[in-house]
Amino acid sequence: MSTRYLLLAEGSSGDPLYGKTMRGVLRYRRQDVAAILDSTRAGESEAGVPIVARVEEALPLEPTTALVGVVTQGGYFPPAWMELLRTCVEHGLDVENGLHVFLADDPELARLARERGVELRDLRRPPADLSTATGENLAVDATIVLTVGSDCAIGKMTVSCELDLEARRRGLRSVFVPTGQTGMVVAGWGIAVDAVVADFLGGAAERLVVEGGNRGGELLWVEGQGSLVHPVYSGVTLGLYHGSVPHLLVLCHEAGRTEIEGAGGGPHPIPPLRELVELHERTALPARPARVAAVALNTRALGEQDARAAIAAAEADTGLPADDPVRFGATKLVDAVLAAR
Amino acid sequence: MSTRYLLLAEGSSGDPLYGKTMRGVLRYRRQDVAAILDSTRAGESEAGVPIVARVEEALPLEPTTALVGVVTQGGYFPPAWMELLRTCVEHGLDVENGLHVFLADDPELARLARERGVELRDLRRPPADLSTATGENLAVDATIVLTVGSDCAIGKMTVSCELDLEARRRGLRSVFVPTGQTGMVVAGWGIAVDAVVADFLGGAAERLVVEGGNRGGELLWVEGQGSLVHPVYSGVTLGLYHGSVPHLLVLCHEAGRTEIEGAGGGPHPIPPLRELVELHERTALPARPARVAAVALNTRALGEQDARAAIAAAEADTGLPADDPVRFGATKLVDAVLAAR
Repeated sequence: MSTRYLLLAEGSSGDPLYGKTMRGVLRYRRQDVAAILDSTRAGESEAGVPIVARVEEALPLEPTTALVGVVTQGGYFPPAWMELLRTCVEHGLDVENGLHVFLADDPELARLARERGVELRDLRRPPADLSTATGENLAVDATIVLTVGSDCAIGKMTVSCELDLEARRRGLRSVFVPTGQTGMVVAGWGIAVDAVVADFLGGAAERLVVEGGNRGGELLWVEGQGSLVHPVYSGVTLGLYHGSVPHLLVLCHEAGRTEIEGAGGGPHPIPPLRELVELHERTALPARPARVAAVALNTRALGEQDARAAIAAAEADTGLPADDPVRFGATKLVDAVLAAR
Repeated sequence: MSTRYLLLAEGSSGDPLYGKTMRGVLRYRRQDVAAILDSTRAGESEAGVPIVARVEEALPLEPTTALVGVVTQGGYFPPAWMELLRTCVEHGLDVENGLHVFLADDPELARLARERGVELRDLRRPPADLSTATGENLAVDATIVLTVGSDCAIGKMTVSCELDLEARRRGLRSVFVPTGQTGMVVAGWGIAVDAVVADFLGGAAERLVVEGGNRGGELLWVEGQGSLVHPVYSGVTLGLYHGSVPHLLVLCHEAGRTEIEGAGGGPHPIPPLRELVELHERTALPARPARVAAVALNTRALGEQDARAAIAAAEADTGLPADDPVRFGATKLVDAVLAAR
């Protein structure tokens, strides 16, 4: 039986930041989504998928798996969710969870899951045999392209997916390399690098690009995480950068955003794009210099004319090709990456 | 009863890289070390501490605690060590362990420890309530000084300790902030930041500087980890950098070292010192700009004349005060830091 998801997004299915797992799955695995649970929007629909208030209402749509579609900062579980998860398990649904707290470690839920014969899959649980990077990453025979960005939650995973889809349309042996829980749901493999022991960040990133090569990729699109200028998550960003040894970078930015969002102690200003380009090229490993090939601009908040103006401004600022691959297609950015190879 | 250590350094007590925990403890807590265990050097001594071949031979010296004094890359336990640790526990010694593998998770050793009434202390076990950084770090009312460097195992902890000792000699309210297992043994508190969940790197560093402030420090010397140009550990380095929000940096380097040591897939060249200065200042958070105040040069491999020449060359290259604080005292570097405040 193939997976059919019930997306758990209680109270958040309309929130652009905290519903990002939900939106990623709706964009790239929509055919596998039976329903969305969010009592605050029951009766509506999202991307053609019905929104229900209770687990029981979703059952006629035959979901197999409840997916935690909300990501909270720090990744802990709101206590009220446990009751909802128990209800899912009682109805025979597997549960996939992308938070830092592992459901399988909850004795009561684990016992219930055993009784009902369902699986609790903790996407952020690192492989047990993970260790430090060995240098095998530098031997991967593929062009490695990492998305980097000015902040979290601006669409780095989306850009990697869109460029991968466009490259595959062109007949290239292209592989999307997932590094976070949403990417893992979309692609069905990967490691959530933000959840590994910090010393093993490079080792996790290395394992992912080696696996991407083993999957036959001549072009690997590595999902970026966080930002080098993010006060909370920059360690993950640099560990992933150095461990995935990209040849090329695609710099992602949300048009109009001038400060890191959701980080305390600020303001935390975002430097101009040309400075971000220089910063990223400057921080590449000497053993694997990397260039920014293009700028991917998220223009979702703008009208079309303003979006085109923002793209032109990004090109003028950086001297690089820029586009919004979701809004205007990925042709230009894939052209830029292939030209820079 | 105060702690008296038996340092377990089997086969490594003479190795400059892998005996670094041992050497750190010998330098800064020598008065609390009863003996060193290394059968390959039995009968010799190190820093005036006798080296023995077997645990039993150390018992007349009344150790209370066996300390794993060897750090391996990746931090796993050589299997042969387990037998040695069982012997220590059987003789009633507590065990402190700084590797990534936790002794308390070994059911047999844990059972044995309970039977004998001894403690297994895993220094790298992160606090259970750790989470992401909040911004509280930026409110710490102290001058924060982080050691950074060109590679691992070149003496960043040593430099932080030496500068702290010199500042305390001058009557300043100075606190050494430990971020790794050796520093934790030396100071009796801290978090091994390389062992936390990667997303919580900044949160761990933040907690440490907040604690340093709570301990009354007007000057916090934060022990650095890894290197921004290290292919394996750079994520830890940047997470610690941004999470500890230093005002000033002391750049540590081993004179004559031109490549990162022990990392696969290389060569991994070390950039010139002036480039390292610029790289570190360039990667500071916009909310907390940091300047390199001085260069700490490890000249242990050189004769005195060559050491003085290397220090002069570092000063000429960077335009900053440079010195080897272990060899020539910490006066000049502390002067430089205080002048840069």
